[in-house]
Amino acid sequence: MSRTRVHNFSISLDGFATGEPQSLEAPFGHAGERLHEWMFATRFWAAQGDGSEGVGSGEVGSVGVDHAFAAQHGLGFGAEIMGANKFGPPGWQDDPDWRGWWGPNPPFRTPTFVLTHRPRPPMEMEGGTTFYFLDASPADALAAARAAAGGQDVRIGGGAAVVRDFLAAGLVDHAHLVQVPIVLGRGSRVWDGLEGLEDGYAVEAVPSPSGVVHLTLTRRVPRA
Amino acid sequence: MSRTRVHNFSISLDGFATGEPQSLEAPFGHAGERLHEWMFATRFWAAQGDGSEGVGSGEVGSVGVDHAFAAQHGLGFGAEIMGANKFGPPGWQDDPDWRGWWGPNPPFRTPTFVLTHRPRPPMEMEGGTTFYFLDASPADALAAARAAAGGQDVRIGGGAAVVRDFLAAGLVDHAHLVQVPIVLGRGSRVWDGLEGLEDGYAVEAVPSPSGVVHLTLTRRVPRA
Ligand SMILES: NC(=O)c1ccc[n+]([C@@H]2O[C@H](COP(=O)([O-])OP(=O)(O)OC[C@H]3O[C@@H](n4cnc5c(N)ncnc54)[C@H](OP(=O)(O)O)[C@@H]3O)[C@@H](O)[C@H]2O)c1
Ligand SMILES: NC(=O)c1ccc[n+]([C@@H]2O[C@H](COP(=O)([O-])OP(=O)(O)OC[C@H]3O[C@@H](n4cnc5c(N)ncnc54)[C@H](OP(=O)(O)O)[C@@H]3O)[C@@H](O)[C@H]2O)c1
Repeated sequence: MSRTRVHNFSISLDGFATGEPQSLEAPFGHAGERLHEWMFATRFWAAQGDGSEGVGSGEVGSVGVDHAFAAQHGLGFGAEIMGANKFGPPGWQDDPDWRGWWGPNPPFRTPTFVLTHRPRPPMEMEGGTTFYFLDASPADALAAARAAAGGQDVRIGGGAAVVRDFLAAGLVDHAHLVQVPIVLGRGSRVWDGLEGLEDGYAVEAVPSPSGVVHLTLTRRVPRA
Repeated sequence: MSRTRVHNFSISLDGFATGEPQSLEAPFGHAGERLHEWMFATRFWAAQGDGSEGVGSGEVGSVGVDHAFAAQHGLGFGAEIMGANKFGPPGWQDDPDWRGWWGPNPPFRTPTFVLTHRPRPPMEMEGGTTFYFLDASPADALAAARAAAGGQDVRIGGGAAVVRDFLAAGLVDHAHLVQVPIVLGRGSRVWDGLEGLEDGYAVEAVPSPSGVVHLTLTRRVPRA
């Protein structure tokens, strides 16, 4: 059965998944890389190389609870859905040459659906990633991604607005959020508008020696 | 040395310490008692009796990590500071007979300073609690409370606005927040305006089998 999952989604104590302002120079705004340092320290991340050169040596990095969670990011996915603000900095829709942050060989390696109110034709990249641009509801976007996923799972890749909208629509089967012990104060917040989310999900919290807390939300009633 | 501490301060995943609307019938608004169930299950709480009859039997309740944290609420305090919205429901200032939620014998048993823009004369209660009403800055309120605390610690008792203001002013030595796995969506949020709080505090997270996460903030540089 194809599931819809969120993985390695980092938030601050106050629930922001990114800082502000987002820009070409600072994709996460004033948050910088602080939301992701826990992940950079894992063997999972080391094995990604620098994100542009494929699989690295995997000889470095922690293999504890941070790695165990992080590694699920790559397992069993046939498609990803992301928001316009994850795909590029503000204004990327005005640049016909913008092909995402990730260079010619993006790490997704599956059909990848970018939600935007200003869609463009698909872009086939190296390594198995094709970007499709959709102006569609979360449910319709999920139907498209599922059809393209070949029976595998669909990852909701972020940012905050998209994770929030898919949670609010009840479309997420399980979510892994990583609470980093910083207070960002501003940015894009994942929790807004999700009152009562716990009615639909069992919430588990596991702290890591690195200082982050892994929050997992498991849907209470299996999807039919 | 007299310290300024926050204890047993419960927040939702999205950082709300109370729901809305606050009223005589529903002091925590739509949050009900959900933020405090973890505490009601502890031996610490059982030993408080029902809050109106002094110390109970202490024969029931858990003695695990929730109890260990909860019990610090009562140790070593010579004064408390609280906000107007903790002292009473909206409009209590218009009721000359309002003497707080806690009956004739409140559990504070120390001088207790209520911050309000509409102060009234002090109220001496049974059991050692006297309520003083102050329209003052956090720093001035703390000076008054410290002077009354006889060398013991000062508890910042909440609600969210007061905890936030004292954290923002750098007046808190250590804080114990309890993150309950619910999303309230609305109410009074503790994190607002605290960007960069982690610069001043080491943050530790410890989960409990009850499902809550105990967050402790320890000031990095000892106060001179
Ligand atoms: N913390 C993490 O783990 C993590 C993970 C991934 C990303 N991020 C970061 O999060 C930030 C982006 O998050 P964000 O909340 O600002 O935005 P986002 O969720 O990436 O994108 C939101 C935007 O996507 C478009 N969109 C969303 N739903 C749509 C729909 N149903 N139909 C059409 N268009 C739709 C809209 O853009 P338009 O109207 O402009 O088209 C909307 O403003 C980036 O900084 C990214 O790097 C963080
Ligand atoms: N989750 C928990 O563990 C916990 C703990 C304690 C309380 N609570 C709950 O939190 C809620 C109250 O929180 P809240 O954020 O709404 O309000 P609050 O922090 O209790 O009180 C804020 C109010 O106090 C007065 N005030 C604050 N600072 C002042 C100052 N420097 N000078 C003069 N007046 C000042 C103002 O009232 P006026 O202008 O009206 O005078 C202000 O609106 C209640 O529901 C309470 O039961 C929860």
